[in-house]
Amino acid sequence: MEARTEARAPQKLTGKGQATRARILEHAAELIYAKGVHATNNEQLRRAAGISGSQLNYYFPTKESLVLAVIQWQAERVLTFHRSERFTRFESLDSLREWARYYIAYERSCQEGCTLGSLASEIIKTDLDVRTELASAFRQWRDIFRDGIERMQQLGRISAEADPTRLAHLLLSAFQGGMLLAQVARDIAPLEDALRAAIDHVRAFAMPPAEELEDQ
Amino acid sequence: MEARTEARAPQKLTGKGQATRARILEHAAELIYAKGVHATNNEQLRRAAGISGSQLNYYFPTKESLVLAVIQWQAERVLTFHRSERFTRFESLDSLREWARYYIAYERSCQEGCTLGSLASEIIKTDLDVRTELASAFRQWRDIFRDGIERMQQLGRISAEADPTRLAHLLLSAFQGGMLLAQVARDIAPLEDALRAAIDHVRAFAMPPAEELEDQ
Repeated sequence: MEARTEARAPQKLTGKGQATRARILEHAAELIYAKGVHATNNEQLRRAAGISGSQLNYYFPTKESLVLAVIQWQAERVLTFHRSERFTRFESLDSLREWARYYIAYERSCQEGCTLGSLASEIIKTDLDVRTELASAFRQWRDIFRDGIERMQQLGRISAEADPTRLAHLLLSAFQGGMLLAQVARDIAPLEDALRAAIDHVRAFAMPPAEELEDQ
Repeated sequence: MEARTEARAPQKLTGKGQATRARILEHAAELIYAKGVHATNNEQLRRAAGISGSQLNYYFPTKESLVLAVIQWQAERVLTFHRSERFTRFESLDSLREWARYYIAYERSCQEGCTLGSLASEIIKTDLDVRTELASAFRQWRDIFRDGIERMQQLGRISAEADPTRLAHLLLSAFQGGMLLAQVARDIAPLEDALRAAIDHVRAFAMPPAEELEDQ
């Protein structure tokens, strides 16, 4: 058997191969999200995806190659969701509020946290060579908020005094930290408070200035 | 051999026993902080602490008992640090700024993140029965900020309109999320931005009102 360690690139697979690879990834992502990377093993994944050990090895020869593909899969999903029409490119405070409402109402926020952040925190200290991939995903995510705030400035909705990168880091940090605290407490309140306060802070730069924090 | 699974309670140990237990814990906490729970094994811990396998087993018969003790040890340390004179019970904006400066300058923020938060995120999905302990630690940590903000209100430093629990959740979430983003990016900027923005938000409630955000 050849000594491969990297996953098969999807573009080199047949249509059927791509479908099998996608099915494995979907089940791996769900298992890892529910139980964590360390508690997810090949046996569970083979059973969940209905594949053989040699099939799994064919697509993902090592755990690192599988985890890397799951990171890419989760990153793609979270970035696509944030870029969806629902949030209208985050060019208004209402879209930020809609975003917060979504995750506050999401039943798995308190149980498993953020699909990407919980995975990142679990493996950031391990030897798995995935930090570059994670950094790229979080940078793109941060940029979605930063670009939205820059557009709010161009549209005259928030003051030019606001620092879009700083506000974007606040939003994403409040989200990630709030998700961790909500998981630990099994209570959505820390996430809800953190997101509402972070959005209130963005709102403090609203133009014309908001008279008072009437919707706290 | 008796079938114990819980760690020996320190108060039931002799002075020498307490010292040995403390030495094991200190090394376990450092190994886990640097490498993560999963990559830390008994062999490394025995070597680092200079103890035998039977000694380790005497004090911490299971990995769960060891992890639980490390959580208590790290929680005690972080809570004691936050309650130290340095931060004067967080009863001023300056003490919050001093706190942010400390962690922004702390060289391990970008490498290993928060001593307690990084441990919590790594194990929150595992079967280890430690969630109650983590929840208690984060609640006490949150309460330090909440109590500080309540005192700022009593002292007339910030408006009675501010919601102390919400602001405390923002500060702790920004800290935890910023630590994760800083670790992933190997760059302190996300943490620095998140903390400064969170403190700016608290400052928005300052009395008399701050004229402008002059120190952004």
